[in-house]
Amino acid sequence: MGAVNGKALIDRLDQLKSEIWFDGEMITGKLSEHPAFKGILKTKASLYDLQLDPSLANELTFISPDTNKPTGLSYLKPKTKEDIVKRRKMMEHWARQTKGMMGRSPDYINSVIMAFASSASFLKGKEKCFPENIQSVYESAMSKDLTFTHTFVTPQVNRSLFNYNTSKEPIAAKVIDHNEQGLVIKGARLLATQGGLTDEVLVFSTPNFFLEEDEAYAFSIPSDTPGLKFICRESFVGGDSTFNHPLSSRFEEMDSLVVFDDVLVPWNRVFYYGNIEASVNFLLKSSFHCFALHQTITRQIVKSEFMLGIAQLLVETIDVGEYQHIHEKISEFIIGLETMKALLEKSEQNSELDEFGTMRPHLPPLQIASNIFPNIYPRFCEIIQIIGASGMVTLPTEKAINSSIGSNINHYLQGSDRTAEERIKIFRLAWDLTMSSFGTRQIQYERYFFGDPIRMSSTLYNTYPKAQYVKNVCEFLDINSEGTC
Amino acid sequence: MGAVNGKALIDRLDQLKSEIWFDGEMITGKLSEHPAFKGILKTKASLYDLQLDPSLANELTFISPDTNKPTGLSYLKPKTKEDIVKRRKMMEHWARQTKGMMGRSPDYINSVIMAFASSASFLKGKEKCFPENIQSVYESAMSKDLTFTHTFVTPQVNRSLFNYNTSKEPIAAKVIDHNEQGLVIKGARLLATQGGLTDEVLVFSTPNFFLEEDEAYAFSIPSDTPGLKFICRESFVGGDSTFNHPLSSRFEEMDSLVVFDDVLVPWNRVFYYGNIEASVNFLLKSSFHCFALHQTITRQIVKSEFMLGIAQLLVETIDVGEYQHIHEKISEFIIGLETMKALLEKSEQNSELDEFGTMRPHLPPLQIASNIFPNIYPRFCEIIQIIGASGMVTLPTEKAINSSIGSNINHYLQGSDRTAEERIKIFRLAWDLTMSSFGTRQIQYERYFFGDPIRMSSTLYNTYPKAQYVKNVCEFLDINSEGTC
Amino acid sequence: MGAVNGKALIDRLDQLKSEIWFDGEMITGKLSEHPAFKGILKTKASLYDLQLDPSLANELTFISPDTNKPTGLSYLKPKTKEDIVKRRKMMEHWARQTKGMMGRSPDYINSVIMAFASSASFLKGKEKCFPENIQSVYESAMSKDLTFTHTFVTPQVNRSLFNYNTSKEPIAAKVIDHNEQGLVIKGARLLATQGGLTDEVLVFSTPNFFLEEDEAYAFSIPSDTPGLKFICRESFVGGDSTFNHPLSSRFEEMDSLVVFDDVLVPWNRVFYYGNIEASVNFLLKSSFHCFALHQTITRQIVKSEFMLGIAQLLVETIDVGEYQHIHEKISEFIIGLETMKALLEKSEQNSELDEFGTMRPHLPPLQIASNIFPNIYPRFCEIIQIIGASGMVTLPTEKAINSSIGSNINHYLQGSDRTAEERIKIFRLAWDLTMSSFGTRQIQYERYFFGDPIRMSSTLYNTYPKAQYVKNVCEFLDINSEGTC
Amino acid sequence: MGAVNGKALIDRLDQLKSEIWFDGEMITGKLSEHPAFKGILKTKASLYDLQLDPSLANELTFISPDTNKPTGLSYLKPKTKEDIVKRRKMMEHWARQTKGMMGRSPDYINSVIMAFASSASFLKGKEKCFPENIQSVYESAMSKDLTFTHTFVTPQVNRSLFNYNTSKEPIAAKVIDHNEQGLVIKGARLLATQGGLTDEVLVFSTPNFFLEEDEAYAFSIPSDTPGLKFICRESFVGGDSTFNHPLSSRFEEMDSLVVFDDVLVPWNRVFYYGNIEASVNFLLKSSFHCFALHQTITRQIVKSEFMLGIAQLLVETIDVGEYQHIHEKISEFIIGLETMKALLEKSEQNSELDEFGTMRPHLPPLQIASNIFPNIYPRFCEIIQIIGASGMVTLPTEKAINSSIGSNINHYLQGSDRTAEERIKIFRLAWDLTMSSFGTRQIQYERYFFGDPIRMSSTLYNTYPKAQYVKNVCEFLDINSEGTC
Repeated sequence: MGAVNGKALIDRLDQLKSEIWFDGEMITGKLSEHPAFKGILKTKASLYDLQLDPSLANELTFISPDTNKPTGLSYLKPKTKEDIVKRRKMMEHWARQTKGMMGRSPDYINSVIMAFASSASFLKGKEKCFPENIQSVYESAMSKDLTFTHTFVTPQVNRSLFNYNTSKEPIAAKVIDHNEQGLVIKGARLLATQGGLTDEVLVFSTPNFFLEEDEAYAFSIPSDTPGLKFICRESFVGGDSTFNHPLSSRFEEMDSLVVFDDVLVPWNRVFYYGNIEASVNFLLKSSFHCFALHQTITRQIVKSEFMLGIAQLLVETIDVGEYQHIHEKISEFIIGLETMKALLEKSEQNSELDEFGTMRPHLPPLQIASNIFPNIYPRFCEIIQIIGASGMVTLPTEKAINSSIGSNINHYLQGSDRTAEERIKIFRLAWDLTMSSFGTRQIQYERYFFGDPIRMSSTLYNTYPKAQYVKNVCEFLDINSEGTC
Repeated sequence: MGAVNGKALIDRLDQLKSEIWFDGEMITGKLSEHPAFKGILKTKASLYDLQLDPSLANELTFISPDTNKPTGLSYLKPKTKEDIVKRRKMMEHWARQTKGMMGRSPDYINSVIMAFASSASFLKGKEKCFPENIQSVYESAMSKDLTFTHTFVTPQVNRSLFNYNTSKEPIAAKVIDHNEQGLVIKGARLLATQGGLTDEVLVFSTPNFFLEEDEAYAFSIPSDTPGLKFICRESFVGGDSTFNHPLSSRFEEMDSLVVFDDVLVPWNRVFYYGNIEASVNFLLKSSFHCFALHQTITRQIVKSEFMLGIAQLLVETIDVGEYQHIHEKISEFIIGLETMKALLEKSEQNSELDEFGTMRPHLPPLQIASNIFPNIYPRFCEIIQIIGASGMVTLPTEKAINSSIGSNINHYLQGSDRTAEERIKIFRLAWDLTMSSFGTRQIQYERYFFGDPIRMSSTLYNTYPKAQYVKNVCEFLDINSEGTC
Repeated sequence: MGAVNGKALIDRLDQLKSEIWFDGEMITGKLSEHPAFKGILKTKASLYDLQLDPSLANELTFISPDTNKPTGLSYLKPKTKEDIVKRRKMMEHWARQTKGMMGRSPDYINSVIMAFASSASFLKGKEKCFPENIQSVYESAMSKDLTFTHTFVTPQVNRSLFNYNTSKEPIAAKVIDHNEQGLVIKGARLLATQGGLTDEVLVFSTPNFFLEEDEAYAFSIPSDTPGLKFICRESFVGGDSTFNHPLSSRFEEMDSLVVFDDVLVPWNRVFYYGNIEASVNFLLKSSFHCFALHQTITRQIVKSEFMLGIAQLLVETIDVGEYQHIHEKISEFIIGLETMKALLEKSEQNSELDEFGTMRPHLPPLQIASNIFPNIYPRFCEIIQIIGASGMVTLPTEKAINSSIGSNINHYLQGSDRTAEERIKIFRLAWDLTMSSFGTRQIQYERYFFGDPIRMSSTLYNTYPKAQYVKNVCEFLDINSEGTC
Repeated sequence: MGAVNGKALIDRLDQLKSEIWFDGEMITGKLSEHPAFKGILKTKASLYDLQLDPSLANELTFISPDTNKPTGLSYLKPKTKEDIVKRRKMMEHWARQTKGMMGRSPDYINSVIMAFASSASFLKGKEKCFPENIQSVYESAMSKDLTFTHTFVTPQVNRSLFNYNTSKEPIAAKVIDHNEQGLVIKGARLLATQGGLTDEVLVFSTPNFFLEEDEAYAFSIPSDTPGLKFICRESFVGGDSTFNHPLSSRFEEMDSLVVFDDVLVPWNRVFYYGNIEASVNFLLKSSFHCFALHQTITRQIVKSEFMLGIAQLLVETIDVGEYQHIHEKISEFIIGLETMKALLEKSEQNSELDEFGTMRPHLPPLQIASNIFPNIYPRFCEIIQIIGASGMVTLPTEKAINSSIGSNINHYLQGSDRTAEERIKIFRLAWDLTMSSFGTRQIQYERYFFGDPIRMSSTLYNTYPKAQYVKNVCEFLDINSEGTC
C-alpha cells in the first residue's frame, strides 16, 4: 500500500475502538469530531496529504524496493549521507507544516521503528529476544503508513534516590505473567503524547539504576488492544478560532496516562522481555538515539526559526528595533538557532555506517544540541514575553473585533504600520506560544524532551572522551598522565 | 458610614451601570453572576467581610475621627511608625486572604488616594490645581468604603524613542476641551485591572519625556460615567471548580482597555490639569510612591511565602528533598523572601514625617525591592515548574477523579505519602500558579508592575546618592573629587 | 593594659619568634621589614593607632569594668541593642580604614573569642571541656589587645564523598597524644590567613560528617609555640608603590599552610578535646556564628560601598553614564549593597538576649547575607572589568609617568575631565581590585569565606523554618498538613 | 627565501632598533634577553622552528609558486576547500604549541595581510588607493617570513555617544600632512599586542560612526620607523620559573600604547588614505573578517580544549568526579567546545569562492562563534576557580618544594593519587590561567577580541537575514508581509 493521504488516516483512526477517557468520560464518538482532538487530527491529516502532493512526493516519499510503492521517507533505512540529508529535508517539510509544534509528528516514532529494525540483528540469538518481530512490525507499519506514539516514563510517585517501590499492586507497568498467547502487562506509564490518537503504541523501558527483570521489555500493540486505557489530562485547546488560538486550535496533542489492565501482548508483538542486559544494550547499541535525535533537532530548529520570526515581527510591530537591549535579545535567538544548525550539519557531515550497515548521523553533536535546547527554548519564550510587554495582556477576541465595539479596538490597538487586527493576530500568536496553557506545556515538553537535564549533563560528562585533553595538559606539565579519566 | 461588608459591596457594584464589553458584547446582567467576574467579586466581598469580623476589626479598621465609625485601615493617614506597622499588618491580612494574587485589592488604590490627600497641600495655589477635590474624593471614598482601579499606561502603538504621535484622532487619552461642567476627555488608556469592577477609576499621567499639556491631568470618576468604556481581554478563569482551577476561579481580575469617548469629568472631580510641572512634581513630591510601594511589597512578600510553601510541598510530595540542586532551588526562594522582608522592615524602621505631616515609609528600600521582585518572581515560577517536572503535565480533572476511571487515577497518580487526590490538588495549584493563562498573566503583571525594568534601573541609577562613595575613592587615591556625580 | 597603639603591636610581633617559611626560607629578621609583610603590618598598626586617636576613642574603645582601661570595642560583650550597634560602628571604622580588604582585621577573631567566652558556660561540667580556659584566654587577649588568626579547613587531598583518610601519618591535624603538660597535635590545617602575623592562633574543628574524636578539639596558642610552622604561599604584593599597587601594597595578608609538628598545647590553653558532641554543639549553640557573621557582613558592606564608588568613578572618568546598560550594571551594585544593608539592619533590630545573657544579632538575616555575598562579589568584579574595558590593560607605571616618556602618556591617556595621572590611578585601582593576583585572591576568599556555597545552601534549606508556609498551602487546598517538613 | 627558523627570527628582531619604553626606560639591549620579552620570543621562535621540522614541513609550509621555496602556510591564498582545511590544520599546530595563549601568533596578521592582498583589486582605480603596495608588502612578508602586529583602537578618553574630540593636539593617530616622501602621522593608537616585538606594524582604521577623512588610512611600516614609539604596560611575567608560572613565563605578549610622533610613512607603504568610503568598504568587502576570524576561532578552540583538560585534571586530582554539580560544570566546557567546533566546521564546509577568486570560509558561523566565545571564556575561568576552591590559594613555590620545608609540603599537599609536586604544578597552572595578572589579562583580551560585545550583538542583529522568518510568520497568520525587516 505505502503512503496514504489524510482522509485515509482519519478514517482509520475513527474506526479504532481505543479506550480513551476524557474528563471522566469514555469517548465513544468519532475522534476526529471531538473538540479536544479534531484540531490535531486535522493537522496530522494535512501532513499525510502533503506526502501525496505530486510536487512534494519526491521529497517526502521513496519507492520501497519491497512493495514498489511510494512510502513515507521516515521509514527509509539510510545507506548514504545523501539518504540522511533526504530524511532531514522530509522532516523539515513536516516540521514547517506544524511550525515545530507537533512533538509526536509521525516521523518521530517512524524513525524509531526504522532504527529498531535496522539494528534488530543485535538481538539475534539472545535469550527472550525476537528481532524478527521488530522487522515485521516495521514492514507492516511502512506498508500501511501507520502512526505510533510511545511511552517510557514511570509514574512520579517518589523521586527519592533510594526509593524502591514496595506496593503490592504494580504502579510502573510490568510483566506479571506470560502464557501461550503472549505477555500479560499490568501497571501504568506516564505521558503518552497523542495517546489513543495513533494506530499503535510502542512500549519499552529506558535503562535506569534499578531496572528489574519484569520491566525489561519492548513491544508494539494497537491502541485498541483490550485492557489498554488512555486517561487524558485537561485539554489545552483554547477554542476553535484560529484567530484567537492560532496554535492550540491546530497543534494541541494531548498527553495521557497509559494504563495496562492485564493487557495481553501477543508473542508476535514482543521485541524482547525479561532480559535486562539486552534491554539496556539494545538502546545503547542500536541507532535509536541517533535517529530520534536527528528528527527532534531538525524539528526544534524549524521551531526556533518560527520563534525568531515571531520575535522580530513583534519588534517591528511596536517599532523597538533601535534599542540595544532588543539587539541583544534577538541576537540570543540568532546565536541559538545557528548553533543548533551547525551541530545538526556536523552530525550529518560526520555520519558513518554502523555495524548493521546503516548510515547514522553522528551522535555527539546531536547530544550537545539536545543539552542546549532545553535551556534556550524557555529563554526564547521569556524574551518574547519581554519584548511583547503589556501588549501580551491586551488580547481582545475575534468576536470583539467584529462587534460594534470593534471600531474602538481598531483605533486604539493599532500597531506601528499595522492595523489593530494584524497587531492583535501577532500578539495572540506570541501569547499562544509562550503564555497559554498550550504554550507553557510546550515549554515543559521541550525542557524534558530527552529527560531530566541534570541527568543529561551527567551522561554527557560520563560519555564524552576527555582523556586526550587531560593527557595533553599532563604532557605540558611534564607529569604522569597514566590512569587519567 | 465607614467600612461595609461584602454583600453591601456586591450590591453596589451590581447596581452600577458601567459599560463593560466582553467578547464583543456589552454586559447587561449582574456583574456578580457573570462567569468572568463572579469569582473575583466573591473574593473581593470576602475581604470586606473580613474587616467586619469582630475578631479582626481591630486590626483591619480604625475609628475615623471625623465620622466616628470603623473605617478601613488603608485609609488611615499615618502619623507614627506604629501607624505604618498597623497599615502593613492590615494589608498582610488581606494579602493572605488572596495569597497575594489580587494586584488591585482595594487597599492598593485606597492607599494611593490617602497618599494624594495627605500631600494635597502641595498643589495649593498652583495654577489649574484643585487640592480640595482630592480631599473630598478621599473623604467620600473613606466614608462609603469605595473601591478603585487606576490606569496610566498609554497604548503601545509605537515604542520607538523618537516617536511622536501624529494621528489626528487622539490615541492616548487627553483633554480635548473644557467647559462649564468640566473637562472633556478623549482617547484610551491601557490595562485598567478590574476595570469596571470598582466604584471609581482614578486617572492620572505618569511623567515621561514627552508629556504634553493636554495629558497632564489627574481625576477620579465613577465607573459608570457616560462615555467611559471598559473593553475586556479574554477571560482567564479556567472554570468554576476550585479543584481544577484553585487560583483562576477565585483571583482572575480581568484587565481592560479603557476608552474615553468624550467623557465629561465634572470640575469637582478634577485634581489638576494643563499644568505639566504640577503633574510631574506632585507624583515625585507626594507620598504616592511610598504608600503604593509599601502595599505592593507587602503583598509580594505574602505571595512569596505562598510560593515557597507550594515549592516545598511539591518537594515533599515527590520526595526529592535530599537532592543538593533542590536545596539550591529552595534556597533561592528563601533568599528572595528574606531579602524582600528585610527591605520592607528597613523601610518601616526608617520611616519619617514628611513636609505634610505624614509618616512615610522610607522609599529607597522599597524601590530596591521593586527592582528585585520582577526578577525573582519569574524565576520562582520557573523553579516550581522544574521541581514539578512531568507532574505538571499529568493533570486529571475533578470530574475524572470522581468518575468510574477514578480508581485507576487514585492508584497510579498517588504521591509519596499523599493520595492521588491530594497530589493532583497540589500539582494543579502549582500549574495554575505558573502555567495556566492566569499564572502567566501574573508573571507578566509582576514583571511590569512598576513599569519597564530597564527604565526602572535607569531611575535607580539616576536617583541613588552615589557621590559620597565616589568621593571616598578619590580621597583614597588622593585625587580631585570635585564635580563627581 | 587595654588598647595599645600601632607601634606597640609591631614591636610585639617583631619580637615573636614564629617559624614562618617563605619561598623556601625561614624568616629570621623583623616581620615588619619583610617585603611580603611590611605593608599589611603597617596597615594593621594604623588600625591600632586609630583606636587611640582621641577623636575616635569613644567609638573604638570602651572602659573595661575589670581593668578600668580603654579596651578595644570588639571585646565588648554586648548586653543591649545599643551595644550591638556600637560594636558595628567600631567595625565600620576599621573596615573603612582598610576598604573592607582585610579579611582578618583583628576585630574578626576578637569577636569570635568574645563569643566563645560569652557562651563558655555551655561547656560547664561537660567531659574534657574547660570553659575557664576560654575565659582566661579572653581576658588575657582583652587586656593585652592581642591579635589572632584561626584555621579550620582540612587539607584538600580528596574531596570524594566517601573518602576516608587512611594514611598512617596524619594529614589533618589531630590529637596524637596527651600527657601531663597538655595535648600533642600532629598534622596540618589549611589557609591561616595572616598566619604567623598574629600573637596567637585559634584552632578548632568545624562539624562535618566524619568528625573523629581526635579531631574534636579547640584551643588557642601563641604563634611561636615550638613545632608550629607557617608555610606561606607566594606573595601577592605587587610592589611598594601605592601608585602602582594601591591595594596589594597595603592589604595583602598572606595565607599559609599551618603545620603542627608534635606541637604541645598546654592544658590551660585547651578549650575542649575528645568530645565530639560538645565540639559540634558548642559551635551551634554559642554565639560564634552570630558575631563572626556580624563582623563579616559589616566589612563586606563597606567593601561594597568602596566598589560602587570605584565603578561609578570609572563611569565618570570615561564618560559612559548615559548608557542604559551602564545603568543596569551600576544598579546591580546598588541593589546588592542595599540588600546587604537591610539584612544587617534587620539582624540588629531583631537581636535578642541569648541563654547566656548576651545580646546576639539575629542570625537568619546574616545567614542570608552570607549566602548572597559570594555571588555578588565576583559579579561586582566582573562589572568593573566590563566598564573599564580596554582601559584595564593600558597600565603604565609610576616610573613611566615620571620619566621622559611621561609627556606622551600624559597626553594620550588623559580621561574625560581627568589628567592621565588621575585616570591611571583610577584604572590601576580597578585593576588591583579585580585583576591582580591580589584581587583574584580576594574573589576566591569572599567566595569561600563561610565555606562551600553549595553546602551553605543545603544548610539554609535544612535549617530554615518552612513548615508554616507548607501548612498554609495545605489549608488553602483543604488537605492534610500533618507531618510536613 | 621563505620560511625561516627561530634563530633567524630572533636575530632579526634583536637587530631592529625599535623605540620601546618599559617602566620609564627606553630599551637598549637585546629584546630576546629582556626579562619581559625573552619568554614570549623564545616561544615565538619555537613556532618558526616547528615549520622547518621535516616531519611537519608538509603541514606547516607550502612551496610558493613564485619563489619555489617552502613558505609559511598562513600566507597561502586558498583556492579550494582543501586549502582552507590545510590552513586551519597549520593554525592548529601553532595554537597547540602555544595552548591558544598567544593572541598575536604570527599566523594571525599573516592571514590578514594575505586577505588584504587577495582582495586588493577592490581598491583598483579608487582615489588615494594603492593596491599594488598591499601586494608588495604581502610578497615581501611572505618571502622574508616577517611577523606583524596591528593596532586599531583609539584611546579611551571619552566613550560618550555624542563625544567629538576637540583637543587641538590629535589624540587618535591621524594624517596631519603629506609630502613627496609620504604621509605624516601624529597621535596614538591603543593596545598593540607584541608592539615592538614584530618586524612590522600594520595600521588601519576600523569603520565607526564619526570616521574622519584624516583617519581613513591603512599602511604597514617597520617597527623601527623613526618617530614610532611603543610604551609598554607593566609586565605580567611572573618570573622565569615554568614551575611557578607555567604560562606567563612563556606566553606573556605585552601590550603597548603606540605613539606616532610625526612618523613618515613612505608612499610605497601606503594602502589607502583620505578616502572614507574605500576605507570602510575595503574592510567590509575584502576577506579580512573571514580569515581573521578563521584563525581566531581555531586558536580559541585549541585553548578551550586545553582548558577542558585542566578542569578535568583538577576534578581528578581532588577526586570530585562523582558530584552532579561537577558534571554540570564540565558539561559547560564540553558544550562550549563542541559548539565552537561545529561552527568552525560549518564555516569551512560552506566556504565559497569570492569575487576575487579566493576561497573564503563562510563568515556567519564564525561571526556566531565570535559572539559566543567572549561569554564562555570568562565562565570557563570561573568554573576552574570554583572547582579548584581553596586549592587555588595554597600555592607554594618551586624553591619552597626544594627546600628543607619541602618534606612538609610533600606530605600535606598531596593530591588524590598525585604527589604534592604534581598537585601543585596542576593548581599553579590553573591559577596562572585564571587568577594571575597574566590570566586576567587573557580574560579581558578574549572578552574584547573583536570589540565591545554589545556592539557586536547590534552588528549581528543588523546583518543577520531575518526577513524570511518574519515573512513565514506573516504567511501563517495570513497578514501582509511586505516591508518587514
